[in-house]
Amino acid sequence: MPWLWAAAAHAPGPRRPAPAGAAAEPWREPAAGSAALRGAGRGAAAAAAMSAWRGSRCGSLCLGGRAAARRSALLRQRAGTGTGTGTGPCSGNGGGVRAGAGGFRPSRVAVVAKTTRYEFEQQRYRYAGLSEDDLRQLLALKGSNYAGLLERHRIHTKNVEHVVDSLRNERIEVRLVKRREYNEETVRWADAVISAGGDGTMLLAASKVFDKFKPVIGVNTDPERSEGHLCLPVRYTHSFPEALQKLYRGEFRWQWRQRIRLYLEGTGINPVPVDLHEQQLSQEQHSRAHINERFQDQRSDISGPHLLPVRALNEVFIGESLSSRENFKSCKPSFKFSLHRASYYEISVDDGPWEKQKSSGLNVCTGTGSKAWSYNINKVANQAVEEILNIAKKHGSLNTPLNTELIQKVTNDYNDSLLYSPEEPKMFFSIREPIVNRVFSSSRQRGFSSKVCVRSRCWDACMVVDGGTSFEFNDGAIASILIDTEDALCTVLLEE
Amino acid sequence: MPWLWAAAAHAPGPRRPAPAGAAAEPWREPAAGSAALRGAGRGAAAAAAMSAWRGSRCGSLCLGGRAAARRSALLRQRAGTGTGTGTGPCSGNGGGVRAGAGGFRPSRVAVVAKTTRYEFEQQRYRYAGLSEDDLRQLLALKGSNYAGLLERHRIHTKNVEHVVDSLRNERIEVRLVKRREYNEETVRWADAVISAGGDGTMLLAASKVFDKFKPVIGVNTDPERSEGHLCLPVRYTHSFPEALQKLYRGEFRWQWRQRIRLYLEGTGINPVPVDLHEQQLSQEQHSRAHINERFQDQRSDISGPHLLPVRALNEVFIGESLSSRENFKSCKPSFKFSLHRASYYEISVDDGPWEKQKSSGLNVCTGTGSKAWSYNINKVANQAVEEILNIAKKHGSLNTPLNTELIQKVTNDYNDSLLYSPEEPKMFFSIREPIVNRVFSSSRQRGFSSKVCVRSRCWDACMVVDGGTSFEFNDGAIASILIDTEDALCTVLLEE
Repeated sequence: MPWLWAAAAHAPGPRRPAPAGAAAEPWREPAAGSAALRGAGRGAAAAAAMSAWRGSRCGSLCLGGRAAARRSALLRQRAGTGTGTGTGPCSGNGGGVRAGAGGFRPSRVAVVAKTTRYEFEQQRYRYAGLSEDDLRQLLALKGSNYAGLLERHRIHTKNVEHVVDSLRNERIEVRLVKRREYNEETVRWADAVISAGGDGTMLLAASKVFDKFKPVIGVNTDPERSEGHLCLPVRYTHSFPEALQKLYRGEFRWQWRQRIRLYLEGTGINPVPVDLHEQQLSQEQHSRAHINERFQDQRSDISGPHLLPVRALNEVFIGESLSSRENFKSCKPSFKFSLHRASYYEISVDDGPWEKQKSSGLNVCTGTGSKAWSYNINKVANQAVEEILNIAKKHGSLNTPLNTELIQKVTNDYNDSLLYSPEEPKMFFSIREPIVNRVFSSSRQRGFSSKVCVRSRCWDACMVVDGGTSFEFNDGAIASILIDTEDALCTVLLEE
Repeated sequence: MPWLWAAAAHAPGPRRPAPAGAAAEPWREPAAGSAALRGAGRGAAAAAAMSAWRGSRCGSLCLGGRAAARRSALLRQRAGTGTGTGTGPCSGNGGGVRAGAGGFRPSRVAVVAKTTRYEFEQQRYRYAGLSEDDLRQLLALKGSNYAGLLERHRIHTKNVEHVVDSLRNERIEVRLVKRREYNEETVRWADAVISAGGDGTMLLAASKVFDKFKPVIGVNTDPERSEGHLCLPVRYTHSFPEALQKLYRGEFRWQWRQRIRLYLEGTGINPVPVDLHEQQLSQEQHSRAHINERFQDQRSDISGPHLLPVRALNEVFIGESLSSRENFKSCKPSFKFSLHRASYYEISVDDGPWEKQKSSGLNVCTGTGSKAWSYNINKVANQAVEEILNIAKKHGSLNTPLNTELIQKVTNDYNDSLLYSPEEPKMFFSIREPIVNRVFSSSRQRGFSSKVCVRSRCWDACMVVDGGTSFEFNDGAIASILIDTEDALCTVLLEE
């Protein structure tokens, strides 16, 4: 989004961004868990909210004329469709959507297809100058089931074709793009984006969509093997026309998934995103490039905070690049050892006091992400709960005998408490594998919050958004992490 | 250790290595916790053990003539020194050690000095073609305290000089090497190795020492800022001559820290270690090199298991390179997204059934490592214990009211149960951030074991030893991870 990026880069902006949820958004019910299942009477409220929004936000976010046009188109449309449950978003290209009463009829759909493992292995070995036959041999030698990989690849391809054909049968214009070809232009062109793959593909597809009213819909193309929490129920993978009909008839619910926005300020920052999928530089080149760049940045006037041109649907991870998912970062080899895995930083939660931390990184997630990595970081195992209760028993504070049922109940209750609705405008932060010693504080290691500020004390760290986009985050940089309901991602809920 | 590597590479070796602790090692007491504090009467036992060892082990490990000579020198020495508490190890170069009654008098000492952050920043910016003055400016701009970094660097340098001078005053030959210059030749030359830095430097120094009777001693050169669990008590940093006198007079205890050995077998393996500190290739070059190499390997006869030429003092970490500490690994950028952070593998604990796992990697540690990363992976926070006990209370199974004292006691007891003595020949494995779903098993996620076998289902994974040495570990490879008491590292315990 160059225009948004430019706006963010030049607007001075608030030194401390307003806390999340500040913007009025009446069509998101407070009881967010069930909000997605009620859509009635949103039209008028939306109109009010939108006009309020235009007045109050346009300056601060510097949305261009196209965006404003989009909003008013929406107002007309909402007014027209009244209380239809599936009130349709307006298009990103000035009203190409044929929206029936409460229904949603995109005229242009971009389908983003994942790269299968078969394709990956193919790429990798071609890259090494080997033939398809070599690939077959190699995979066999590796104990990988070549036939199996090929089979999964065919299933995926078949499912993608099914989706594309279903769309074209409805005379919908379709652009089928590989993840690598997927770009802002395609997003602008489309009224809706369909990700064909798993959750990873859905994250990628969503990452380029900034328009709150441009739906992103996930189709799980490998239902037997992947979970696809962010995708439509698996039965629609094989009966996509049915899903389309439900969209047309408005037999669905919109779900706005909250996303995290990031501001970067301070010295030594480099607000240019690095796409982990396109990174081609060698370590050395990259190192030189970035250091000189940063050096120039710093010599020049240091503005900030910068609103970064990405939104996190699952999570933001901050950590030394050696422990984060970014693996091209410049870092003198002789140094990796001392780096080890620890990340140093200071953290302030909800404008509270700054606290030093040393850990395997920091994870800040949304309700959507609370079911993903954050959950795996924080959940406890039966085994641990059993041991903890046994110790409590030893200290004479348990009256009932320990049975597996109780252990399971306690485990489930604890782990369930880590999950919350994708529509709730709040974040959950987790200090990952905190290192507690005389220097570093042992206070709250996780919790809900509406704003997290992090001051980097890292040497070669990065801030990774949904495992896909990365920003340098070294000593001197300060990140403000918060939810603004304007950044929500529009998705579709269909019943099982 | 080329000779050891060659031996490992050509010896067929057992398909399943014998479980840890098989080799007799009478001078390691069963109650390992206190073993280090008792040394009396080890001499004769050692002699017996050693001769037994020579008979039973020499074939399988293919130790060369030098090693055998080393052993007999030891036998002579042990016989001579009888029951002295600080029975001195023999030298790596055929008896250069002047061992008094129970004392330890090395004649050649290698001092391995860490790279300070100041030196790192200097390297990094010189590398980018900037001057010392630019560095000063840049660090200031970054909010880093240039004076502070310089100060820490000077403290370190001063402490290193103190150690070197103390040694030379005793007419001990000293080789002062930077971590980068530290190599096998230096190890062979030295009777003892002193690491001057923190735990990271100690790990590096130990990683190249395979002789169980060549002591490695850690001096913490930045006591105010680093913990140095593996180093001598901090007071000896400033009074190193006192430490030397105690070594001479035998007023210390040997501590043999158990280490993990690794066997790699199967297809698609590449048992060549990659030193993370010397890795200079660009991703592309590296990718090509390794793939073609592997391709050749696989075409040729696949032997195994290979005994890898490293021993882990802290831990072995297995995971996709994106989640491990190795950051040069070849991986098509387009693929990182799907990779995300999950590692797929199968695990068998103590020859139990194979179980599928999907997680943020696998950590297998020693008693030494149980206080390091493994501890941070597994420890619970007060906060979590409080919530768990509250839930148990809600289920009516707590009789005493919850007070902070109880919570603290339970937390401490649980976390203490994760620690064990460095001398115990057992390992603790942790499945890190396990992902539990219908496909992957949720059974035991951590525990003590004497042997862990892992079958890789990873695409671009590595096995990282003590954060410093890495091996490719992709689909088709099988690792056997176990403790052999012959691999123990000889260290010195001095009272506070």
